[in-house]
Amino acid sequence: MNAPLPDHIHPAVKPRLVPAAMLASLRERFGERCTTSSAVREQHGRDESPFPVTPPEVVVFCESTDDVAAVVRLAQEHAVPVIPFGVGSSLEGHLLAVQGGVSVDLGRMDKVLRVNAEDLTVTVQPGVTREQLNREIRETGLFFPIDPGANATLGGMAATRASGTNAVRYGTMRENVLALEVVTAGGDIVRTGTRAKKSSAGYDLTRLFVGSEGTLGVMTAVTLKLYPLPEAVSAAVCHFPSVDAAVQATIQVIQMGVPIARCELLDANAVRYVNRHDKLALREAPMLLMEFHGSEAGVKEQAEIVQSIADDHGGEGFQWATTPEERTRLWAARHRAYFAGMSANPGTRTVTTDTCVPISRLAECIGLAVTQADEAGLPYYIVGHVGDGNFHIAYMVREDRPDQRELAERLNLQLVTHAISLEGTCTGEHGIGLHKMGFLVDEAGLGTVDLMRTVKRALDPKNIMNPGKIFTL
Amino acid sequence: MNAPLPDHIHPAVKPRLVPAAMLASLRERFGERCTTSSAVREQHGRDESPFPVTPPEVVVFCESTDDVAAVVRLAQEHAVPVIPFGVGSSLEGHLLAVQGGVSVDLGRMDKVLRVNAEDLTVTVQPGVTREQLNREIRETGLFFPIDPGANATLGGMAATRASGTNAVRYGTMRENVLALEVVTAGGDIVRTGTRAKKSSAGYDLTRLFVGSEGTLGVMTAVTLKLYPLPEAVSAAVCHFPSVDAAVQATIQVIQMGVPIARCELLDANAVRYVNRHDKLALREAPMLLMEFHGSEAGVKEQAEIVQSIADDHGGEGFQWATTPEERTRLWAARHRAYFAGMSANPGTRTVTTDTCVPISRLAECIGLAVTQADEAGLPYYIVGHVGDGNFHIAYMVREDRPDQRELAERLNLQLVTHAISLEGTCTGEHGIGLHKMGFLVDEAGLGTVDLMRTVKRALDPKNIMNPGKIFTL
Repeated sequence: MNAPLPDHIHPAVKPRLVPAAMLASLRERFGERCTTSSAVREQHGRDESPFPVTPPEVVVFCESTDDVAAVVRLAQEHAVPVIPFGVGSSLEGHLLAVQGGVSVDLGRMDKVLRVNAEDLTVTVQPGVTREQLNREIRETGLFFPIDPGANATLGGMAATRASGTNAVRYGTMRENVLALEVVTAGGDIVRTGTRAKKSSAGYDLTRLFVGSEGTLGVMTAVTLKLYPLPEAVSAAVCHFPSVDAAVQATIQVIQMGVPIARCELLDANAVRYVNRHDKLALREAPMLLMEFHGSEAGVKEQAEIVQSIADDHGGEGFQWATTPEERTRLWAARHRAYFAGMSANPGTRTVTTDTCVPISRLAECIGLAVTQADEAGLPYYIVGHVGDGNFHIAYMVREDRPDQRELAERLNLQLVTHAISLEGTCTGEHGIGLHKMGFLVDEAGLGTVDLMRTVKRALDPKNIMNPGKIFTL
Repeated sequence: MNAPLPDHIHPAVKPRLVPAAMLASLRERFGERCTTSSAVREQHGRDESPFPVTPPEVVVFCESTDDVAAVVRLAQEHAVPVIPFGVGSSLEGHLLAVQGGVSVDLGRMDKVLRVNAEDLTVTVQPGVTREQLNREIRETGLFFPIDPGANATLGGMAATRASGTNAVRYGTMRENVLALEVVTAGGDIVRTGTRAKKSSAGYDLTRLFVGSEGTLGVMTAVTLKLYPLPEAVSAAVCHFPSVDAAVQATIQVIQMGVPIARCELLDANAVRYVNRHDKLALREAPMLLMEFHGSEAGVKEQAEIVQSIADDHGGEGFQWATTPEERTRLWAARHRAYFAGMSANPGTRTVTTDTCVPISRLAECIGLAVTQADEAGLPYYIVGHVGDGNFHIAYMVREDRPDQRELAERLNLQLVTHAISLEGTCTGEHGIGLHKMGFLVDEAGLGTVDLMRTVKRALDPKNIMNPGKIFTL
């Protein structure tokens, strides 16, 4: 078992400086959209991970695919790293300029390019956020379900193969990206996939880019599946005597094939933080926050089955939130757990685990994790997309206490080791980034990681695309 | 627009002979499981495509992953092609030894290795067929839905990214393969993916291999998702005044988000062939054959919505087949359309199109295809997984009439050109094989196909894995 990286910057790798000639070319083309101001660089050299800020040398604000291609061609010519940047909501250090280079800010590429409501597809620029997309398509009666909590960009979500609360029903970015426009490491603009729902036309390059964390190219347009807004939606809250009871109920719901749309676990700590932060009065006990989508009758039927399963596991106080306002309030609170935890523990940052295991092993995996977390004594809470076997323990570690960070990382290592032994993965949805490169080798094996390296070297021979993430070369 | 390949063997490429030393090594290890008998070679040098038989030089019957790795290592050493073989049900010439080499018969690797019913997963050897799998897991209450019609092997289905009648609800092999064991071109045994339902751990090598048609490695174990058998299943047949009316009804069903499990179109020709072959008495008019999965109430609700949509499009005689026997009879007949067509037209082989378009363009695409087929005068029928926008025109061409084959290929070219202009794909589920290499370039663009070539060269530098398929190097 490989220990987590002791440092986030591989000691053998030196930053590659942006040469003056390249900077001059960038300034000539981009004018004020190319900046070396330290405030902007700092903002582009961090994310929501606990890694120290590691700024790029230059930030370029791109407004078109041609802009991106122009930057990448210059970077290719000068062998300088390129790091795509959305809103900076990554949790694993994806955006940090560990080998220097240029941050390509895609935030201004925020147009919904085409809505094909009659085909249930939409094509967006990479800087469109998921909330923006759902606002802009509201009148079509369709929605995009993937919801990682943060209001991330769809480019960033595709790059990390994100998922979140709705994935138990609607799948992840893996299942929901139909086609891409990508600027390759060579600066070429290529398209992968079509708007057809399925295809057997050659290698699945779309899915090779989805989850590649910016290391193979820059996505400049993303075509996504949409879904009809369900006729009926209802949310329910149910409290359980223990985390284990809540998880056992979830396992049974999944094994029975109930098409539940969301099935989120919050442990008592998470409920407490959320109550305080959002001024709610939820009972401070382990809780499932569930959502059902379908016809009126279908939703009722699903909920009855789930309620009966919950009863069998000591679930109490099955409460309905059927108005959109109530539902929004509950989900917004859930999504703010991350910030609620930090605001309850001032001066801390969060180290978040992200294991995902086969559903039958979830109780075992989460059980040991709780025991270890309680023993460790760090403030923590658990939230989980438990219907998928995925959960997060968030440890709040003080920024001035490196020993706490180290302890949290040790706990994460123990958890990942356990999850891998249960045939699970070190990361259900956050990605590898800087944080889990050792875990990836433990999980996939060196031979498989070497295959990834072979693909990377072939598509990016100068190693300019977000180098030093997923693996070092 | 590139014309279909005039010949299936690229004129510039010479077969690479299996050297005597390699043959001796194979014989030493495999004894009678290594054969050069012409009957066995012929059987391994054809599939269900109309291409002429092109036998490998040697056939090796593998019984284990180590067997496969041993063959691949020898092939690597001697730079000789390796072609994985399941049951030979490919439709696009995937199995033909166009550059000579060794056929690796995986038919004896037919064990269901692990059923994890509690996780809804199963791991199989590549030679397990889909019908066998569903027989072997019957008592678990689970099933594997992907059904391409032929009783193909799961290895072959993964290699071509197959789908079929159930894909409209359950997805394709792309969505249903969780993990793989693969023998790489270098003869290494690697594992991709885990049994966790989702993961963001590095490049999605699983999906890179799924659909790679044996050109990147040999799959030696496949982990699949399973689904609970629905509480209720019912099938319905509905006749329409025209193909267009049937398609318009389908489009509306999909746009409304009805979770229909199967939605198959048969044109009047297909119904006629099927009636004759299976001694059925279906009305010989365009027909939708549908299936609904869910709870008793859910199935009823779906069927009512669909019936009302069908009514709006002139659908008549909505007939139910609720007993498993009736359903099996209907679906078996549908699956035998391919053989029914040939048996009604003795001395013919079938040229099958496989376009898939965004659902809103389906009526337009299929409409022009029908007009062109009627004008051409070849015997044909249409079947289609129309809920996915995917349909097949099967032209029966006489084996002694190369002009008929050429005409069918010209019609296919017209159809593919049209489908691509509608943002669709040349192949929804059959793969590229030998047949659609030109179409792939038309669809994806040379830059994207060159990316595929780059991946291929990196993972298989000697071009030994099923060379000459998908693209030539």
